[in-house]
Amino acid sequence: MTIDTQILGALRANTNGVSGMELAQKLGISRAAIWARIQELRALGYEIDAGPHIGYRLVGVPDALHAEDLLARLGATNVIGRDIHVFEATTSTNDVVEKLARDNVREGVVVFAESQTKGRGRLGRAWVSPPRKGLWFSILLRPPIRPSAATRMTIATATALVRAISAHAGVTPEIKWPNDILIGGKKVAGVLTELSAELDKVKYIILGIGINVNHTTAEFPAELRKMATSIRAATGRRQDRGDLAVRILRELDHDYARICNGQFEAVADEWSERCTTLGRRVTIQMGDRLIEGAAESLDRDGALLLRTEHGHLEQIIGGDVTIKK
Amino acid sequence: MTIDTQILGALRANTNGVSGMELAQKLGISRAAIWARIQELRALGYEIDAGPHIGYRLVGVPDALHAEDLLARLGATNVIGRDIHVFEATTSTNDVVEKLARDNVREGVVVFAESQTKGRGRLGRAWVSPPRKGLWFSILLRPPIRPSAATRMTIATATALVRAISAHAGVTPEIKWPNDILIGGKKVAGVLTELSAELDKVKYIILGIGINVNHTTAEFPAELRKMATSIRAATGRRQDRGDLAVRILRELDHDYARICNGQFEAVADEWSERCTTLGRRVTIQMGDRLIEGAAESLDRDGALLLRTEHGHLEQIIGGDVTIKK
Repeated sequence: MTIDTQILGALRANTNGVSGMELAQKLGISRAAIWARIQELRALGYEIDAGPHIGYRLVGVPDALHAEDLLARLGATNVIGRDIHVFEATTSTNDVVEKLARDNVREGVVVFAESQTKGRGRLGRAWVSPPRKGLWFSILLRPPIRPSAATRMTIATATALVRAISAHAGVTPEIKWPNDILIGGKKVAGVLTELSAELDKVKYIILGIGINVNHTTAEFPAELRKMATSIRAATGRRQDRGDLAVRILRELDHDYARICNGQFEAVADEWSERCTTLGRRVTIQMGDRLIEGAAESLDRDGALLLRTEHGHLEQIIGGDVTIKK
Repeated sequence: MTIDTQILGALRANTNGVSGMELAQKLGISRAAIWARIQELRALGYEIDAGPHIGYRLVGVPDALHAEDLLARLGATNVIGRDIHVFEATTSTNDVVEKLARDNVREGVVVFAESQTKGRGRLGRAWVSPPRKGLWFSILLRPPIRPSAATRMTIATATALVRAISAHAGVTPEIKWPNDILIGGKKVAGVLTELSAELDKVKYIILGIGINVNHTTAEFPAELRKMATSIRAATGRRQDRGDLAVRILRELDHDYARICNGQFEAVADEWSERCTTLGRRVTIQMGDRLIEGAAESLDRDGALLLRTEHGHLEQIIGGDVTIKK
């Protein structure tokens, strides 16, 4: 843990203030060095009161993601968030993580960007990622699974997102198979799963996650307003993005452990409860092919099992789902 | 087509010789320029006779792969071999092609290396690739298939390799599922299929192919002699590697077209005839898991269907197969 991570951790743990001497002893550095770091944190937008009786006290945090602060708030996890990077802007966080993956960086690293110039959705579609309005991030994982089981990771990510958003914002999103998170029928978050593999072994998976957090309705491009929303637009309350980010990483870490420990069934059960696609008649566009049927359940690899009009069960890996009225 | 590709093409097409004037007219350059290119080709090891009556005549080719010459001999194909690169040495030709893939190079490019310092087999195993003893090359493809159908590409590659080696060397290899080509029970070639994908769409596939061509038995490391062979060791005849390479690319181009045109069944039928794994009792090691059963057939994605002792059919994507006596 870096000095900043420890100082921010201590300030957050002691809401009534913590003395410079106490911080200095705990961190094994001088009081002057503590003071210098406090100045740096203030420059980053942290509002820190100081006084002879209260010591240092955190009274306000900037609307900006800060890697040291996220690490301090996250605490210990199994895998996800061992290391966190925050970029002010990048092309796509998936691209950054892919470079790390190819440099053999170990799994669990998380890369956030305050904005993306080329944010991607599925099938090469654009994902609009304006500065500080959302959480745009990617996670490197190296699960011991076959490529065909990679859909499990998308399923686990969706359940973790629903739990985190629900706990954070008090509104429970629904899931549209395979990768959309909706509030009131409008898209609030999406997951892009990319993988590199041999035929029988995943080398790495990159989970790309985009969450619309603090957009007002007016801030969405006109053509997206009917289908997209943000947590703020849905709840009427501005959200602390750092707090939400930390909750998501913790929930993801929990579900990733479940996947790796062979507990996919439990994840799938939870997913099924939240999924509005199951039990509905749907049409699915897969490339040139259009399939219609009843969405019955997930199989053990996370694929959708569709009962077609001819009565047989088709395993669907991906595609664009439209729910029939 | 480059000048060298055209000159070598004309020399190969006119085994009795072709005049400098004829070449100059055909290529639209001066006779002096033709003469300069002939000197360059001689420096590369091409033996080219010249005389007032015969003109230029190709009497010997070097035991070296030359991109221009391979392009000249290959002629027109649908996809594979549109562009060819030859490296004297590289880490792994799959690594080179992966860089090209990420630079959005279009499919069909082929990269050969005369030797690889870090040649790879499946599951991160080493592939020994000594200078000029074999064909070590990789091909970039962008087939419109789901990740789970990537095994089809390995199946197609194996059938193409068997046809090419059989036509070239007069000895018909057998196939051991999923990626080994054997002569007399010893490994003569292997295929490493790597892919980059979204959940429902392959972004690119890299076919890495290694063929032991001109090793003598003594040239194999002692620990490999029992399980590995070369075409030369198996036939007693030194092979023209360029000729074999061109045949393979042509056969692969044919089978790739079959895969893309929905004719996988025909490829699978041909594969099944050559495969010594089908119809046998086998044990398959998949990571920690050991499965035993009868190898029955391929499914439509190219996976092996194994009838286990409990009587049900398991779909096997990869693993190490041992055939039971």
